[in-house]
Amino acid sequence: MELLEKRILKDGTVLPGNILKVGSFLNHQLDVDLLDAMGAEFARLYQNQKITKILTIEASGIAIACFAARYFKLDNNCSVPVVFAKKNKTNNVNSDVYSTQIQSFTHGKTYDVIISKQFLNAKDRVLIIDDFLANGCALQGLIKLVQDAGATVVGAGIAIEKGFQNGGQLIRSQGTRLESLAIIESMTENSISFRH
Amino acid sequence: MELLEKRILKDGTVLPGNILKVGSFLNHQLDVDLLDAMGAEFARLYQNQKITKILTIEASGIAIACFAARYFKLDNNCSVPVVFAKKNKTNNVNSDVYSTQIQSFTHGKTYDVIISKQFLNAKDRVLIIDDFLANGCALQGLIKLVQDAGATVVGAGIAIEKGFQNGGQLIRSQGTRLESLAIIESMTENSISFRH
Repeated sequence: MELLEKRILKDGTVLPGNILKVGSFLNHQLDVDLLDAMGAEFARLYQNQKITKILTIEASGIAIACFAARYFKLDNNCSVPVVFAKKNKTNNVNSDVYSTQIQSFTHGKTYDVIISKQFLNAKDRVLIIDDFLANGCALQGLIKLVQDAGATVVGAGIAIEKGFQNGGQLIRSQGTRLESLAIIESMTENSISFRH
Repeated sequence: MELLEKRILKDGTVLPGNILKVGSFLNHQLDVDLLDAMGAEFARLYQNQKITKILTIEASGIAIACFAARYFKLDNNCSVPVVFAKKNKTNNVNSDVYSTQIQSFTHGKTYDVIISKQFLNAKDRVLIIDDFLANGCALQGLIKLVQDAGATVVGAGIAIEKGFQNGGQLIRSQGTRLESLAIIESMTENSISFRH
């Protein structure tokens, strides 16, 4: 998506350790016009797929997921709901939730992620949306939660995929449809190049 | 806001400890059409206030803030940006951020909340948006962050205010404009009544 690539080139910053900072528009300050355009693009990519729910994970996936949701309509013409998985703050995971463990690339730790069972069911056709894909742990965790519910993963929509890490290849090799709006082929402190 | 009150009556659940569960539409699963209508209502309440930024706190404030932001335009006709304060996951708070401590009513603990200094400046006219107001700790923390930046708090927009707790009175008595879309006067497991 050219609009997103241009914005990454203009405002993204590469830090040591393969960190791409996009806090000025994507995950601390939010450019809601850009996010809305990204939502429309996800809707174009996944049109006619009878999506019933958009799943993301707190916190930075929520905004993109919400804007995308407005472009997906249920049969009653309401927008599809967004469900965001929560990073569990307590140690007790109870029987009312689907849960899995996710290892964070950015924060270097593992945490429990949960979704209340009442918000995912076997009839759901789910589009998973997130801001970043690196090693794929978060996305694999979300896919597992959908599968635990017996629901269908229609595909995943990612804002920025780090193409030089193995998450994208891993997810695609498992047969999950994956659409990333910008795929970074390589990056250094002075340059960022994209895969097309 | 009648639409929100009706939805609370229909789908909200009161649990012991003055907990109001609205996870089916506001803070776990998100009804984005409702959130969009709430955003429009905040825009009506704060029109002509020359808002330049919407501030919220992760995670559940993000969606409401984003939908509101689309209704507030800058002079260049872009939507105002949303900035969300982050609950700090590391122990080091550096000099690049404004930080404060907030005590969570729901989770019963205190955490550091931070905003990168580059996303708030003295010229900003800020509308603070959040999903809940109970004892007012989160809102007071966000007000402090705006003041630390030398920016102006135009007001706050809250989805659900627990009118039987003291946060609303506290904030209003400090002279901050506060608009809550639904104010709960009292609630029990069997009934919820609103202040009008």
